Amino acid sequence: MSIESSVLRRIKPNEDEISRIQRSAERLRALASDYALRNGIEAEIKLVGSVAKGTFLSDPDLDLFMMFPEGVPRSEVNRIGLLAGEDLLHGQRLFSEHPYTRGVFEGMDVDLVPCYRLRTTERLQTAVDRTPFHTDFVRSRMDDDMRDEVRLLKKFMKGIEAYGAEPNTRGFSGYACELLVIHYGGFRKVLEAAAGWKEGMTIAIDGKGPAMIGPIVMYDPVDPKRNVTSAVHIDTFATLITAAKAYLREPDERFFFPNEREPMEQGGLSRLAEIHGSRLITVIFDRPDIIEDNLCSQLWKTRYALAKKLNEYSFNVLRAVHRMNPEELVIVFELERDVLSKTYKHHGPPVWVRTSEAFLEKWRDNEFGEPFIEDGNWNVIAERFYSTAAEMISDEISMSGIGREIDPRTMSIRNHGETLCMTDRRLLTELLDPRHSWVI
Amino acid sequence: MSIESSVLRRIKPNEDEISRIQRSAERLRALASDYALRNGIEAEIKLVGSVAKGTFLSDPDLDLFMMFPEGVPRSEVNRIGLLAGEDLLHGQRLFSEHPYTRGVFEGMDVDLVPCYRLRTTERLQTAVDRTPFHTDFVRSRMDDDMRDEVRLLKKFMKGIEAYGAEPNTRGFSGYACELLVIHYGGFRKVLEAAAGWKEGMTIAIDGKGPAMIGPIVMYDPVDPKRNVTSAVHIDTFATLITAAKAYLREPDERFFFPNEREPMEQGGLSRLAEIHGSRLITVIFDRPDIIEDNLCSQLWKTRYALAKKLNEYSFNVLRAVHRMNPEELVIVFELERDVLSKTYKHHGPPVWVRTSEAFLEKWRDNEFGEPFIEDGNWNVIAERFYSTAAEMISDEISMSGIGREIDPRTMSIRNHGETLCMTDRRLLTELLDPRHSWVI
Repeated sequence: MSIESSVLRRIKPNEDEISRIQRSAERLRALASDYALRNGIEAEIKLVGSVAKGTFLSDPDLDLFMMFPEGVPRSEVNRIGLLAGEDLLHGQRLFSEHPYTRGVFEGMDVDLVPCYRLRTTERLQTAVDRTPFHTDFVRSRMDDDMRDEVRLLKKFMKGIEAYGAEPNTRGFSGYACELLVIHYGGFRKVLEAAAGWKEGMTIAIDGKGPAMIGPIVMYDPVDPKRNVTSAVHIDTFATLITAAKAYLREPDERFFFPNEREPMEQGGLSRLAEIHGSRLITVIFDRPDIIEDNLCSQLWKTRYALAKKLNEYSFNVLRAVHRMNPEELVIVFELERDVLSKTYKHHGPPVWVRTSEAFLEKWRDNEFGEPFIEDGNWNVIAERFYSTAAEMISDEISMSGIGREIDPRTMSIRNHGETLCMTDRRLLTELLDPRHSWVI
Repeated sequence: MSIESSVLRRIKPNEDEISRIQRSAERLRALASDYALRNGIEAEIKLVGSVAKGTFLSDPDLDLFMMFPEGVPRSEVNRIGLLAGEDLLHGQRLFSEHPYTRGVFEGMDVDLVPCYRLRTTERLQTAVDRTPFHTDFVRSRMDDDMRDEVRLLKKFMKGIEAYGAEPNTRGFSGYACELLVIHYGGFRKVLEAAAGWKEGMTIAIDGKGPAMIGPIVMYDPVDPKRNVTSAVHIDTFATLITAAKAYLREPDERFFFPNEREPMEQGGLSRLAEIHGSRLITVIFDRPDIIEDNLCSQLWKTRYALAKKLNEYSFNVLRAVHRMNPEELVIVFELERDVLSKTYKHHGPPVWVRTSEAFLEKWRDNEFGEPFIEDGNWNVIAERFYSTAAEMISDEISMSGIGREIDPRTMSIRNHGETLCMTDRRLLTELLDPRHSWVI
C-alpha cells in the first residue's frame, strides 16, 4: 500500500462519521431555514466550507451562511444575522472584517455568518460574500477521488507548517489547496509541480486577472482580481518547495504526522549556544487585547523591526523566533555578539575644510585620545553610543517601528544568561535547532 | 623679540661657525680639484646642497659633486668617482640610484657624488644630475634674509615631523622648503599660505609642467616635468596645514623644539588600552639587508596591506604605528576587537535554484545546525574561517601583498597581553596617544 493510501486511511473520516457530519449539517441548515421562515427573514441559508465541499478532515467546523438579498441595509443584515446566531446557537459574537456568531451544534463548532446573496463577484461588500461562490466552484469541479487528494494535500500542508492563511501561519488556505488539486489533478501532481516552482510563480485556472506581485500568485477563478495565495509568505512558499522535493525523493508519513518537537534540557541548550559561539537575547511585551490575527501581524512586524535595528548596530542577527502567550509576547534573537567594542574609529572631515575646526573643537580633550590625521582626514577614537544589544534596544525601541498596538513601555529584556534560565525551552529549541518539522 | 627671532638665534650657526664651515668646504673643493688635475680627470668639482646655498642649520653635511663631461661613459664616471671618494675620503661606498662615497672631512660628513655636467635638465641620466641646477637656482634667488627664513621653515618642518623626502618621513625636502620661501616670500608667508591649502594644491614658480596628481604639486623651476613635492604623503601635507593653522593662532617655540615624548609606563599603557576598550597586536619581521629607503617603503606597504586584511575580516583597525629596529621590523595595530564570534550566518542560494541541492549536500550534518530558510533563501550558521586576528594574519600573510623583500617566514605575532609586556613602550605610547609633536 502506498504511503498516501495509508495516510488517507488515517485522516479520512469513515463512512459513518461522514454521514453523521452531513446529517448534522443538514439538520442545522433546516433549523436555520425554518427559523428564517418563522421570523419572516428573507434570506437563503447555505452550508459552505469544507463540509459543503466534502474536503474535510476529522472534526470539521460547520460554516452556515445566511445570505440576504442585496436590497437589505447592511445594519439590518448584521442585526438580524447576530440575532439568529444568538437564537440558534447561543454562541459568542465575533467581529473580524464582518460580524458573525461562533457556537456549537451537536458537538460541532459552527460559524453562522450573515452576508449578501450576489449574482456575481463584481460588487462584493466583504470577503465573506465571496465564500458561497468558492463552495459552488469547488463542488462543480470535484469528484470523490479528488476530495481525497485535497485531504492529503491539506494534511501535508499542516504537517510541514504551511497550512492556513492567517498572519501566524502565512500559508495556504483550504481553498488554495482545493484549487491546486483542481489545477494539477492530484496530491502528487501538486508536489511535482511545486518542486519546480520559483519565486513569482503564477497559476491561472479560469483566466488571468491583473498582474500582481507575490512569491506565488494564484488567480481566484471566481474573482480574478484576487490572489488566493496572497497570504503566502516567501518562507512558507520556500518551505513547500523544499518539502515537496524531499517528499518526492523519499515519501514518508512524517510529512503528514511530524514528530512533536521535544524541548531540549537547559544544559543542552547552553551547550548548543556555546558551540555556536552565539549570544541570546529575549524581548518581552505585555500582550495587548486586540484580535489575534492583527496581533500576529504586529508581532512579525516587531520582530523584523528589531532584527533590522540589531543588524544596523552590528549585533548581527543569526536567527529569531517568537511566540504569543496568553499574557505576553516573546521574541528571542540569536546574535553573533551582544557586546561591541567600547570604541570605534569616528571619521571626520578632511583637514583642509572649514568644518574641521568645529570637529577639533568638539573632540578637544576626548577621553579616548586627540583626533589624528589619516589619509588627509581627521579621525578620532570615539565611544560607541551603545555597547550592548540590550542597551540599544531599550533606548531605540520607541523609534524602531514596532507594531502599533504593542506598548514599548511594557517591554522587558533578558540577556544571554537570563534567556537560558528563563525563556521557554521549547522556543529556544526551535531557535537553536532549525530543522524542518518533517526531519525531527 | 618675536618667537621667530628667538628661534633663529638658537638655530642659526654664528658667524664663526659659518666661516669655519665655508672654509672647510672650500678646502675640500680645492683638494678635490687638485686631485682631479693631478690624475688627469676632466671633471668640474662643485659644492652643492645647503652649504653651497647658505641655508644650512648646525652640523651640515657637505655635498661635493664631481661633474664629468657628457662624453665620458657611465661606467668610467662611476669608477673614477668612487676611486676619488676612496682616495680623498677613505669613505664608505654607497649605492642608491647612483654610486657615491660617504666620508668625513675636518669633522664634517661628506657625500662625494659623481655625475654629468649638463647644459640643461632635458636629458638627465640620474636625479643627481639635477642637483647642481637646484643649487644655482636657489643661489640666484636668495639673499641672506631669505636664507634665515628657509632656516626657520626647515626647523619648523623638522619640529612637526614633516621634513625630509625619504620614504620614512614622506615630507618636504630642503629644496622644497627653499622654493616655498622663494615663492611666498618668507617663513610666515609660507605658513599663511599653507593654512589655506587644500588637497591638489599646485605651485608653479617659473611655469607649469604637465598635469600631475598628488596632495601638492610644486613644479621644479629647473625641470617642470618634475614635482618637487612628489614624496609628500597626504598625511604629511595635512599635518603641515594643521600645524600652520595652530602656529598662526598661537606661535610657540614648541613647534621648532618639540618636547621629547616620554614613553608611558606599562601600567599606564594597559589602563589606556582598557579605557579605549581596544585590543593590541604586534607583528614582527626580521629586518632584511636592503637599502634603508627601500625597506622603509616596503614597511609602509606591509603595514597598509595588513591593515586592509584586518579590516576585511572585521577586526577593524583603529590606528597603527611601525618602527625599524636594527634587527627587526615592528608594526603595532590597535584593533576594535581581536576575537570574532565563532560563527556567522552564511547566506546560500534561493530555495528554488538548482544549486540549492549542492548547498544542502555541503551543509548536511553541519555542526552548528541544519540550513534554514530565510526570505526564500537557504542560510546556515557556519564557523568563521578565522576567529582571531593572530590566526588570520598567520594564515593570510603570504597572500597579503606585503613588501617584496620582507620575509613572511620570519614573522612572529604578539597578542594583546604580550604586546603590552614586550613591545617597545615608546611605540605603544605613540600608538595610544596620537597627539602631534607640538602639543606634547
